[in-house]
Amino acid sequence: MYNLLKGKKGIIFGALDSKSIAWHIAERCYEEGAEFTLSNTPAALRFGQLKELAEKCNAEIIPADATSMEDLNNVFTRTMEKFGGKIDFVLHAIGMSLNVRKGHSYDDLDYGFYQKTMDISAWSFHKVLQTAYKLDAIKEWGSIVALTYIAGQRIFYKYNDMADAKALLESIARSFGYVYGRDKKVRINTISQSPVLTTAGSGVAGIDTLMDYSEKISPLGNATADDCANYCVAMFSDLTKRVTMQNLYNDGGFSSMGMSEMAMDVYKKGLEIE
Amino acid sequence: MYNLLKGKKGIIFGALDSKSIAWHIAERCYEEGAEFTLSNTPAALRFGQLKELAEKCNAEIIPADATSMEDLNNVFTRTMEKFGGKIDFVLHAIGMSLNVRKGHSYDDLDYGFYQKTMDISAWSFHKVLQTAYKLDAIKEWGSIVALTYIAGQRIFYKYNDMADAKALLESIARSFGYVYGRDKKVRINTISQSPVLTTAGSGVAGIDTLMDYSEKISPLGNATADDCANYCVAMFSDLTKRVTMQNLYNDGGFSSMGMSEMAMDVYKKGLEIE
Amino acid sequence: MYNLLKGKKGIIFGALDSKSIAWHIAERCYEEGAEFTLSNTPAALRFGQLKELAEKCNAEIIPADATSMEDLNNVFTRTMEKFGGKIDFVLHAIGMSLNVRKGHSYDDLDYGFYQKTMDISAWSFHKVLQTAYKLDAIKEWGSIVALTYIAGQRIFYKYNDMADAKALLESIARSFGYVYGRDKKVRINTISQSPVLTTAGSGVAGIDTLMDYSEKISPLGNATADDCANYCVAMFSDLTKRVTMQNLYNDGGFSSMGMSEMAMDVYKKGLEIE
Amino acid sequence: MYNLLKGKKGIIFGALDSKSIAWHIAERCYEEGAEFTLSNTPAALRFGQLKELAEKCNAEIIPADATSMEDLNNVFTRTMEKFGGKIDFVLHAIGMSLNVRKGHSYDDLDYGFYQKTMDISAWSFHKVLQTAYKLDAIKEWGSIVALTYIAGQRIFYKYNDMADAKALLESIARSFGYVYGRDKKVRINTISQSPVLTTAGSGVAGIDTLMDYSEKISPLGNATADDCANYCVAMFSDLTKRVTMQNLYNDGGFSSMGMSEMAMDVYKKGLEIE
Repeated sequence: MYNLLKGKKGIIFGALDSKSIAWHIAERCYEEGAEFTLSNTPAALRFGQLKELAEKCNAEIIPADATSMEDLNNVFTRTMEKFGGKIDFVLHAIGMSLNVRKGHSYDDLDYGFYQKTMDISAWSFHKVLQTAYKLDAIKEWGSIVALTYIAGQRIFYKYNDMADAKALLESIARSFGYVYGRDKKVRINTISQSPVLTTAGSGVAGIDTLMDYSEKISPLGNATADDCANYCVAMFSDLTKRVTMQNLYNDGGFSSMGMSEMAMDVYKKGLEIE
Repeated sequence: MYNLLKGKKGIIFGALDSKSIAWHIAERCYEEGAEFTLSNTPAALRFGQLKELAEKCNAEIIPADATSMEDLNNVFTRTMEKFGGKIDFVLHAIGMSLNVRKGHSYDDLDYGFYQKTMDISAWSFHKVLQTAYKLDAIKEWGSIVALTYIAGQRIFYKYNDMADAKALLESIARSFGYVYGRDKKVRINTISQSPVLTTAGSGVAGIDTLMDYSEKISPLGNATADDCANYCVAMFSDLTKRVTMQNLYNDGGFSSMGMSEMAMDVYKKGLEIE
Repeated sequence: MYNLLKGKKGIIFGALDSKSIAWHIAERCYEEGAEFTLSNTPAALRFGQLKELAEKCNAEIIPADATSMEDLNNVFTRTMEKFGGKIDFVLHAIGMSLNVRKGHSYDDLDYGFYQKTMDISAWSFHKVLQTAYKLDAIKEWGSIVALTYIAGQRIFYKYNDMADAKALLESIARSFGYVYGRDKKVRINTISQSPVLTTAGSGVAGIDTLMDYSEKISPLGNATADDCANYCVAMFSDLTKRVTMQNLYNDGGFSSMGMSEMAMDVYKKGLEIE
Repeated sequence: MYNLLKGKKGIIFGALDSKSIAWHIAERCYEEGAEFTLSNTPAALRFGQLKELAEKCNAEIIPADATSMEDLNNVFTRTMEKFGGKIDFVLHAIGMSLNVRKGHSYDDLDYGFYQKTMDISAWSFHKVLQTAYKLDAIKEWGSIVALTYIAGQRIFYKYNDMADAKALLESIARSFGYVYGRDKKVRINTISQSPVLTTAGSGVAGIDTLMDYSEKISPLGNATADDCANYCVAMFSDLTKRVTMQNLYNDGGFSSMGMSEMAMDVYKKGLEIE
């Protein structure tokens, strides 16, 4: 639409199907003129629809387990080969908790699962960054974004150990943001997004009620996957060159709200019939 | 109970009647061995029950409009005379909005009232501090606390221009905390307290529902006026000598919560009958 | 460059001369296709170079004291007349402290000046918003930005009562952001900018050293006025439709830094010769 | 001194020698009437002076690797046996990074070491909490504190992956604070302490300069280990019953500072000789 990303090359991790936020981001980046490769796990490639996205965006798929340094090295190396040199942007949209999936509550964590939650949802971001840094894969003033959720700051029951993973992810963005900014002028930020009904999220019990609450608290309503895609375009573009080490809320105002009249009206009705 | 404030002298601004948080703070300070003067406006003295508190705590009442430098000068001068020198602590529990009282919504503020809100609820704190500073009225390692509410960070509909006043009050605590810490080793903090049903607050429409919501979101429930009094005792004592320029939440965990199961259950019921 | 603001109309408050951040913002908005009016005080119009900017950007100048509701009403009314209806964006870049100018330190504030600091630097933002709201002057999904500084959160000696003004300004953005978002889908944010050597700022003693420190702490260096202009373009564009009530740091990473190696090296040298 | 902890029982993890913050906390808790057990790793017991502290405080030592659920189970079980039931407080003062020790910079982390940093410095806190929760080892209104550092929010070069560990530790305090508060009225907080020259810390290159900088930025100077001990006493006492899920700065004001005149003077001298 604006050619904001014309000539920019990147890697997008974590698109699964058309409900994925990363899917919408890929589509918008493509519209804005970017070229990129797509990466997800072999399992995700089997069950998802990534080929469809790849065709639409004229993008190559490079399978990778984002916890494997070897796989990540391959993703960056092949991407650089393809584009003939350094790239401009990376999106990290990866997260998963076996404790959530298997029904372990936060006071009954399986520590093997907990480690996997951290590895998949947070350390993978460090691994992506360290791989890129060592390969010197990102151009000066390049931009890296990871998706996160406000549970990194405030507790939402049932979000479980993913809250810890998000807090860690955001810390990694700050820690590596210092190093990568200082040495290579690369910026690293997280976008803290409203809840979105993705394929992964739709299985979570109570997600509908949470999304309704979030919608009614937020003066502008929940930010959609398309809103997130637009914000990512802004963050990958040259308009935000000196924004780094930030956690940026794309949430219709939720994070600055205590209580809205609209949500309180629902709550009050609930009280009356108790 | 513990003699934590034995030998300490202070001034407590803002007690009106037995529902006031400042009233509970005064009682607890007295129990812990502190001596202090009490101050409130002449109008508050007429309509409130401050004399009862004064007798109970063996305290002198010094009327003052906390927006008047002359009155404040008198409060500090008389208090120092009474105690034979510098004092150890000050409590600021003062706030009022005519926009709230007269029903002006935030998009229809009366700017004369807005100025009064700031003067009474925030600048009065600067005036207290500047008066104390100029009179060199506070001992080294003395402690000053002002009461605030989380509306300084997050919007609660109907809290109106008091949100701005609280944000300003907390900024004044930081700004003067630097100066007073550097020059006199005096610490300045704000305590951000759960909602309490005071005489002033009980007139606000919807306060009951907000308090119920706050209670159910907070894992430890709303902090009471007595909890606040205990926290103030800790902040006035020698246990917290190097804590300064902080906004301290005394709120049962509310400030770190996104959504609790208990509150969500009520909300869900409200949705079902919509 | 990208036509990001093509068809969008706005008002830019606070450009004085080519060193002003607002000047750079105006230029970039013009490049991106926006049309707007420019407003500043009659005194600023006499001493500044606003006419030059107006010609460059094909913009009309509408003089106004931003603390006067009558003047603000005129700015909005004439702007809407000119553009034949509602507008899309507003920039507030206004601030001034007589306490700073006249050398009153924070422990010796003149309260008349303090009130003026608040009125000019913070309440003026509420007045702009209330005027716009009452005239229903902003289109759905319109965007309003005010410029601020990290002194609203952390104390920088000599920034004085402007710290309080910035904290208040940011609170007003949140408070009105709720109302304006809820009722009209208008978003309100503040951009917290690195220090820039403007005409106003260059008179402040020690600004050079502060800027050097800030530059060396920030991994990407200080954000310039042009960086700020680019960020504003992103915030006024349709790329950030659901971002509201946020304080957005455009600061090269400063706000997330404790200490950098580069700044520490300078500090260490300073220690050695003490 | 005040009998604030009379009758209270607890466990203190992490005291090594008389420079340890946990050592000072143990001494102060003992002075205030508390009884407790002491725990550290077998290696720490060999090289430290814990026996001296144990004798002084009439405390039993229970060796444990705090990453081992079996060991932790033993610590809690034996402590409860000793005191004939549930306990009142726990201190977690545990942290170590092999990446720091072995000189791996943040862009060259050894992921085996990274995992150990997390396990020792952050997960161990979850393990302590989960053990206590499952054994129902903590009385209603009990209090748990973990020590942390502002590197969890802002980057200090060389603090390396410990920054991530501290961010994760603070998230665990919030996450488990919700569960433990809701179910058992137990509060969980972190104290974010000024740098202290412990035996562990004194090996870090540049710690002296950092401590000087921190001292000169903070209006009240760096909080000492004794200040931290006093703050812990307040947090373990009944004075702070409804404070939970908070990160509490005990830092002389550092966290709310941007730049002080005293630190800037040193920095300026450093610039002049560059």
